[in-house]
Amino acid sequence: MTDGTGKRVDGGSTALTGIGSLVTNEPSLGEGPLGLLRDAALVLEGERVAWVGPSARVPATDQRVDVGGRAVIPGFVDSHSHLVFAGDRTEEFNARMSGRSYTAGGIRTTVAATRAAGDEELEANLVRHLAEALRQGTTTMETKSGYGLTPDQEARALRIAARHTEEVTYLGAHIVAPEFADDPDGYVAQLTGPMLDACAPYARWVDVFCERGAFDADQARAVLIAGVERGLVPRVHANQLGEGPGVRLAVELGAASADHCTHLTDADVDALASGSTVATLLPGCEFSTRAVYPNARRLLDAGVTVALSTDCNPGSSFTSSVPFCVAVAVREMGMTPDEALWSATAGGARALLREDVGRLAPGCLADVALLDAPSHVHLAYRPGVPLVRRVWRRGVAVD
Amino acid sequence: MTDGTGKRVDGGSTALTGIGSLVTNEPSLGEGPLGLLRDAALVLEGERVAWVGPSARVPATDQRVDVGGRAVIPGFVDSHSHLVFAGDRTEEFNARMSGRSYTAGGIRTTVAATRAAGDEELEANLVRHLAEALRQGTTTMETKSGYGLTPDQEARALRIAARHTEEVTYLGAHIVAPEFADDPDGYVAQLTGPMLDACAPYARWVDVFCERGAFDADQARAVLIAGVERGLVPRVHANQLGEGPGVRLAVELGAASADHCTHLTDADVDALASGSTVATLLPGCEFSTRAVYPNARRLLDAGVTVALSTDCNPGSSFTSSVPFCVAVAVREMGMTPDEALWSATAGGARALLREDVGRLAPGCLADVALLDAPSHVHLAYRPGVPLVRRVWRRGVAVD
Repeated sequence: MTDGTGKRVDGGSTALTGIGSLVTNEPSLGEGPLGLLRDAALVLEGERVAWVGPSARVPATDQRVDVGGRAVIPGFVDSHSHLVFAGDRTEEFNARMSGRSYTAGGIRTTVAATRAAGDEELEANLVRHLAEALRQGTTTMETKSGYGLTPDQEARALRIAARHTEEVTYLGAHIVAPEFADDPDGYVAQLTGPMLDACAPYARWVDVFCERGAFDADQARAVLIAGVERGLVPRVHANQLGEGPGVRLAVELGAASADHCTHLTDADVDALASGSTVATLLPGCEFSTRAVYPNARRLLDAGVTVALSTDCNPGSSFTSSVPFCVAVAVREMGMTPDEALWSATAGGARALLREDVGRLAPGCLADVALLDAPSHVHLAYRPGVPLVRRVWRRGVAVD
Repeated sequence: MTDGTGKRVDGGSTALTGIGSLVTNEPSLGEGPLGLLRDAALVLEGERVAWVGPSARVPATDQRVDVGGRAVIPGFVDSHSHLVFAGDRTEEFNARMSGRSYTAGGIRTTVAATRAAGDEELEANLVRHLAEALRQGTTTMETKSGYGLTPDQEARALRIAARHTEEVTYLGAHIVAPEFADDPDGYVAQLTGPMLDACAPYARWVDVFCERGAFDADQARAVLIAGVERGLVPRVHANQLGEGPGVRLAVELGAASADHCTHLTDADVDALASGSTVATLLPGCEFSTRAVYPNARRLLDAGVTVALSTDCNPGSSFTSSVPFCVAVAVREMGMTPDEALWSATAGGARALLREDVGRLAPGCLADVALLDAPSHVHLAYRPGVPLVRRVWRRGVAVD
């Protein structure tokens, strides 16, 4: 049943017909790894996909929307963002890109502003960014703590996040908290003790920034194992700023994802190829910091599963646009348009160990983006153009 | 007078108040080259800007819109596009970016499709792309012929373009027409004779693609001078694919703009710095062809006036997004966020010899973009995010 505007009001069915090009990400349903169908239709029933097939054979439904030959893709699965924050770092970005010096506190600037903010401000900020991403086609979005760095502050961030997404990550191990600057091991004890106690009830994931200047392999291992013992599933910020132990640690612990993967040795690539850990690439970060891009081609050629996400955060990558990341991945990282689209949908789902999103097969969640374009290739072909015309999330059309 | 929805129905006045950051591009009105004002207001009266100043001192108007601290900028002036075309080159782009061979006809593919298309199709295509650009903040858009290459076809393209923009460019000299493949000088005679006769009534500008494989310096000079003799103003596609005579020819003839400027010698930069010709940079083209970017910093440091445009066309740069070009120019071309914004507004106006657009000073056309951001810096800081919230063109709010 719908209210006549395409907005589902209860468990009725809607058929999208006349789809010029439908990406299902289900090879058994169509052509190639994207499971591409032409002249297709898609039936949404309640919050699920009920039927996929040729437009001419679409079954009867409560409502029908002819999309006029446009492309339909699974909603994007953005598996890496940092959206529980307050404060403004526009001037830090402006100074960096203008070649002016700026005594930036980096993440610490955001920690101070986040700690000082009320719950309402943090929640409003999060909701605004999730809505902005949803309008751009992102129907599943992971987000992290990491700007609180005390048990109460981290738990608060996760409690707020958990009200708005099921993919919540405990990242107390973002940087060493300022209070523990001279006692990093004391902070690790905090992370694996009282902070974990306070945070575990709200999170699905445990993450750590394993990098020179943040947490070393032993510290990172301790944080991740403590999280696993509390039922959290590990993921790792790894090899962003230089080579290091992060990726191999992620594979060793069976982490769902190693994120960034910008500086990899052959041993790192081999480890990823032999394990189940997804490599999540975040080109918005390299774009906004003028850093070298990760080499997606090398990973794909080695057989590694690659996800593509925004890393949306106010410091190093303030984009919420998965289409932008797709275009940059094609321009700079050696991905084909098909590979980039897969990584931004099915790849993100793999990085979150989800079977129900990132695909449009019967039984999957009805998370759908309709493009103002005849093909998903236009996401790379028409960079920057807002091509997402309409979005359905869990079967409900977004206003 | 308005109809209550912000849409002007006759010559009434509207005040935009509570502007957190207003770019006027009028140094006498505010801070720096952008003439930046904080806590500002802007009054639109009829199709013009009537008043600019502190929000607290805004005069009485028929209508008032509080923009809640957001940023306001002049509408973008996109001085280089190719929008009178038909056909689809998605597969050519896909093959190029996927490393697959493709027997592409390049511009000739679009020429064949454009010639075969009816007027209605060409016009609908143009209108759709202009509307798409307008929603992204582009309130002035130049466009060219160049996919017809016969007197009738070029005149048709310009006649259609002239119905929708005042900035119309005769680019019969895009490539040598297929019919003249063995007689390029015969095509130049066509360009300077019957084709010019057919086209001059509809165009303001004459342009030529001066590049190895297209038109050499003598041919280009003949085309431009013939155009000038018919009252057209010259602009030149110059130094896109390699060094060559294009930029110096543009300066020699006092062209309004030399466009692309990707491969420049020191002599080219000196020529631009000593003349009045604007260097129009088109990073969408380098993005979508994986080519080296032009060095904006070198030009700016030499004192050259730089414009930033999309080059929107189906072959080499199918973006209509000026914000995307701003972000890429900052990432890749050594521009500061302020310089990129100036070049995409006031710079574009200079490249079109316009005083009435690209600025928000009293008397200018009321072409305004309201951003969902506190500062214009967010156009670079938040790449790919559709930040243009509302647009007024000639004082009328765009739906």
